[in-house]
Amino acid sequence: MTSSQQREGTDAIGSELYKFAIELYPICRSITGEGIRQTLRMIQRHIPLQISEVPSGTAVFDWTVPKEWNIRDAFIKDSSGRRIVDFQKYNLHVLNYSAPIHATLPLSEIKPHLFSLPAHPDWIPYRTSYYKEDWGFCLSHNQLLSLQEGEYEVCIDSTLADGQLTYGESFFPGRSAEEVLISCHACHPSLANDNLSGIVVATYLAKLVAALASDHRYSYRFLFIPGTIGAITWLARNQYSAKNIRHGLVLTCIGDKAPFHYKKSRRGSAEIDRTVAHVLSHMTESPEILEFSPYGYDERQYCSPGFNLPVGCLMRSVWGTFPEYHTSADNLEFIEPLRLAESLDICAAVFEALEKNCSYRNLNPHCEPQLGRRGLYRSTGGDSIANEINARLWVLNLSDGQHSLLDIAERARLPFRVILDAANLLRENGLLEPVPETSNHKEIAQEMAHKKSAPIS
Amino acid sequence: MTSSQQREGTDAIGSELYKFAIELYPICRSITGEGIRQTLRMIQRHIPLQISEVPSGTAVFDWTVPKEWNIRDAFIKDSSGRRIVDFQKYNLHVLNYSAPIHATLPLSEIKPHLFSLPAHPDWIPYRTSYYKEDWGFCLSHNQLLSLQEGEYEVCIDSTLADGQLTYGESFFPGRSAEEVLISCHACHPSLANDNLSGIVVATYLAKLVAALASDHRYSYRFLFIPGTIGAITWLARNQYSAKNIRHGLVLTCIGDKAPFHYKKSRRGSAEIDRTVAHVLSHMTESPEILEFSPYGYDERQYCSPGFNLPVGCLMRSVWGTFPEYHTSADNLEFIEPLRLAESLDICAAVFEALEKNCSYRNLNPHCEPQLGRRGLYRSTGGDSIANEINARLWVLNLSDGQHSLLDIAERARLPFRVILDAANLLRENGLLEPVPETSNHKEIAQEMAHKKSAPIS
Amino acid sequence: MTSSQQREGTDAIGSELYKFAIELYPICRSITGEGIRQTLRMIQRHIPLQISEVPSGTAVFDWTVPKEWNIRDAFIKDSSGRRIVDFQKYNLHVLNYSAPIHATLPLSEIKPHLFSLPAHPDWIPYRTSYYKEDWGFCLSHNQLLSLQEGEYEVCIDSTLADGQLTYGESFFPGRSAEEVLISCHACHPSLANDNLSGIVVATYLAKLVAALASDHRYSYRFLFIPGTIGAITWLARNQYSAKNIRHGLVLTCIGDKAPFHYKKSRRGSAEIDRTVAHVLSHMTESPEILEFSPYGYDERQYCSPGFNLPVGCLMRSVWGTFPEYHTSADNLEFIEPLRLAESLDICAAVFEALEKNCSYRNLNPHCEPQLGRRGLYRSTGGDSIANEINARLWVLNLSDGQHSLLDIAERARLPFRVILDAANLLRENGLLEPVPETSNHKEIAQEMAHKKSAPIS
Repeated sequence: MTSSQQREGTDAIGSELYKFAIELYPICRSITGEGIRQTLRMIQRHIPLQISEVPSGTAVFDWTVPKEWNIRDAFIKDSSGRRIVDFQKYNLHVLNYSAPIHATLPLSEIKPHLFSLPAHPDWIPYRTSYYKEDWGFCLSHNQLLSLQEGEYEVCIDSTLADGQLTYGESFFPGRSAEEVLISCHACHPSLANDNLSGIVVATYLAKLVAALASDHRYSYRFLFIPGTIGAITWLARNQYSAKNIRHGLVLTCIGDKAPFHYKKSRRGSAEIDRTVAHVLSHMTESPEILEFSPYGYDERQYCSPGFNLPVGCLMRSVWGTFPEYHTSADNLEFIEPLRLAESLDICAAVFEALEKNCSYRNLNPHCEPQLGRRGLYRSTGGDSIANEINARLWVLNLSDGQHSLLDIAERARLPFRVILDAANLLRENGLLEPVPETSNHKEIAQEMAHKKSAPIS
Repeated sequence: MTSSQQREGTDAIGSELYKFAIELYPICRSITGEGIRQTLRMIQRHIPLQISEVPSGTAVFDWTVPKEWNIRDAFIKDSSGRRIVDFQKYNLHVLNYSAPIHATLPLSEIKPHLFSLPAHPDWIPYRTSYYKEDWGFCLSHNQLLSLQEGEYEVCIDSTLADGQLTYGESFFPGRSAEEVLISCHACHPSLANDNLSGIVVATYLAKLVAALASDHRYSYRFLFIPGTIGAITWLARNQYSAKNIRHGLVLTCIGDKAPFHYKKSRRGSAEIDRTVAHVLSHMTESPEILEFSPYGYDERQYCSPGFNLPVGCLMRSVWGTFPEYHTSADNLEFIEPLRLAESLDICAAVFEALEKNCSYRNLNPHCEPQLGRRGLYRSTGGDSIANEINARLWVLNLSDGQHSLLDIAERARLPFRVILDAANLLRENGLLEPVPETSNHKEIAQEMAHKKSAPIS
Repeated sequence: MTSSQQREGTDAIGSELYKFAIELYPICRSITGEGIRQTLRMIQRHIPLQISEVPSGTAVFDWTVPKEWNIRDAFIKDSSGRRIVDFQKYNLHVLNYSAPIHATLPLSEIKPHLFSLPAHPDWIPYRTSYYKEDWGFCLSHNQLLSLQEGEYEVCIDSTLADGQLTYGESFFPGRSAEEVLISCHACHPSLANDNLSGIVVATYLAKLVAALASDHRYSYRFLFIPGTIGAITWLARNQYSAKNIRHGLVLTCIGDKAPFHYKKSRRGSAEIDRTVAHVLSHMTESPEILEFSPYGYDERQYCSPGFNLPVGCLMRSVWGTFPEYHTSADNLEFIEPLRLAESLDICAAVFEALEKNCSYRNLNPHCEPQLGRRGLYRSTGGDSIANEINARLWVLNLSDGQHSLLDIAERARLPFRVILDAANLLRENGLLEPVPETSNHKEIAQEMAHKKSAPIS
């Protein structure tokens, strides 16, 4: 494939990803309700997705599945009956998960329920009130300042009632019961980078896995869930089978143009941590690797001490640190088709490295084998060697059964793909044999098979 | 307590510490004799202190307790009978531990016994001759240069005779036989930073421990001893019980205004090493952590290979590296009340961190517990969280029985106190349980209990 | 020995080393044939050297000993019969290991067989074709450009025929069967830094060992071998006894004036790696320590995974990275007597550190012994101590049977020699006893003794 063909492919996939984000953008999602349900149905058009509904009131570890929230309309009308704040125009205008209200109130009584951003007076903030029943509106600070004293009609036509918590799950069994988990939250309304970028990249990653028609080493599981309560609910219902997760990534904020940031798992040097750091260092400019912390997205739950799963978080801009975060400025202009496509590429390269990482044994361990005789070396003595040949020497030197291809790629400071190609070529030439995996993971997987896994509804 | 109350408290305690230094300053201490005996009696006015006397000639490991030195007067008189160098005015004028002499000698025969500092011609050096019998005088270089040829009467009215080596010891039993050791030398004459700062801070630390009325985890032992020979003597007489020392600090040069310096124990990553580094990094500006070396103060003895105790050395200026060291310029103007109070604060914070460091187990290890429901989280979703809440998340995440609070504080980069408060709050809310200490230390302590400890006289 | 005497000694030995390089320079060496045979005979005038001949066709691991190459003459004559490229003038002019040819050919047919260096148009490159039968000439780029179209007589009067591969080996048994290996390649024609510097330094190192008349701890083995195939052949014939190699160095490019570079063994922290790094840090300016890589000189073979021997590579300029490398500019002017002598010094210091490195036990481990009483300390209390006394304190403090002298030297940041002198002095004073070596190495050596070692022919 030529470089220009590759670029065309990236452009094409970028356009598809972005188009999907455009479709998802207007929906008013929340942690429960029709918004997330509709979102999951749209994902279902692309990939097989099992949609689970968990009743309000269900105990999930220390938490309880909350009521289902649905909203039809919301507005503030001035004395002339004009909608000056209108949910129909922008779903961020309503405090997400607001209790219903319909009343005419003086401005002074409304003000405690109004949220704005003085530092960015044209932007509308995104605010939620999941666990404390409240109502409220978000609006630009300029609009807030322009409000005249007087009475206003405020209406939030929402319901908070027993119902369901909804999440989507796409599972692709591989040769091993061990899983790669991709998790993204799907509970934010019209926010593009924080939420939609993760959803669309995860969807297309699942399409890539689906296209392999089960010809993959690991099983792959994609979760589209409401943040926090969704991850907790899924983990509560899959407490034992979760231990099959050998590698995992939370995807969020991966559509903007900042350099990549990867937050390591609690373990800190899990294979996923090393793989992502390696791939980013060879495929991207100025990536940054962040230490684990217990504050963030759903890696908080996957990395809680009772699970301690090797799950990191891949981002471009880091949530909470860019001005547009959780505001109306995190819109479709803030993300770009090419950036979404690059993020998909990175995840695909991570998948490849996880799939292909294994250990080999050099079948000619005493001195180097004569590569030249096999056409695997240059013929005329010179001064420098190409990366390809260097990679062959590294693979031969470190293939003592103790070093994985990732170990070798790290030590050689060569891209995993170059090391992998070298290993494949050497294996075809009868110079390497694979070393059977004897890690604990297999044993854990087998052990798990004997336990009863919580059923997925 | 408000910040201004805190400042007043610090000012008050600083004044007390400084006042005690003023009282101690004039005494002519040495490694034996009335000077150190008088010093210990003055400490006894503040804290219960057991004073031990060990006879000259007693074998202590490879050493022998030396003769007792006492001095009443010393001078050099010129031909007119005027005291031109006068011990009564400044005890540094006499070579410490000088043998007696009374003679009239030409300047040329006196000169080999005169010590001055050409680089600081107004200062009087502090010199000793403990293990080679000699006599001598210290004086400013300017005075040395001004001496006219001719005869002078030199007199050192001292005695070097069989007697005692004296040291003081203050012991506060705690719930555990394991000890925290604070050791400072009390053998220097009128030197303020090197010697007195350690003595006064150690005395007030002992007062703080005494005020706890035995309600503390560790036992605390404070030693006020002559340098080197005192530590060796104490260790020789407490060879087995010394193994109860789980954490220790030598205090010296902690009254001046330099940034703190901490020299690590020979072990290099003992809990005391990590604790002091942690406390200094959060409570002081530009602290420096120094690697262990076998040259220094009495940590040399505590860290000798036969003991290898976890004892470091806390300083502000590092002995031997500041111009005033071992000169008349290390006087009461060189130390400051506020600096002494800060040093006391640091030591108290170290004690607190040692006392309270332990491991907990998160009783809801699967996913986060719902802090909001317990009023331990903010209610409205926002972008950043306070240190207090962050600390709660860290404690919950790492409380798997494998991480101590100090481990957590280090990884979270939060002050120990903030982590401790979080742990206490979570425990009160039924979210944590303490993990019984199963370290080797307990076993060592028990093992020690079966051995006969050398009695303390 | 005074510093000026030392300098004279260095000058004298430098002259000898350089003189030997001058003698070796004109010989047309290759991986087989009379050139290397003649070189080994010249080394034999200095040291006892066992010369081995291994027949062409012998299987050595994955390789086969190649044909023997000998050359008598080679030239390109122009139409007037003038030798315009003449092997007799410069042996680099012939592609090393060229097959014979004698023909008159148009320039166009000759050109694919001509090698030059456009970037350095006055220099002749060094090229080889060992494993692909070919013929060729090397010449300056300026001369290449000046060649007129027309016919030329090309002649390479060489033979490629069944014969022998020749290498030299000098073995000095010590008290232990464990060996120090010094290996250098001796297959390059007129190249001074890359090849001759290693040969002459290794020869004189062997003379130093010979002078010890077996009074040394380790056995020493010096190999003068053709690169790659020579190391492989030696290892194939000494597969089991090679495991006696406890420390090893490949020497190359150690005659020029660049700072020293040391490439670590595959193990990365073997005693040889630490020793060379330590010696270079104390004895040379701006040394650089390089990580192991599987491309390089014969450390590639010694560090292949089946052997994984602790063998590093000592260089000044790093092969392949300096412009003169593998060109006619790597000549006798590129190396200097003083540099050769310094390299010999460094290697001798490494040998000393390996020989003398061992662990001691402090016989007075409780507190410091009283050094002053033994005249091992200064008598008057002062502020600083000399390195010699500091070294004594370090040796006493760390001699708990767990720390070798090298460990102590590294931690004390003092030269090994200073630590060694301190240990010797303390031992003479009855303060230390040696700790018998109980490392795995002995066990490995014994285990090896039970296996049949491949005989050395």
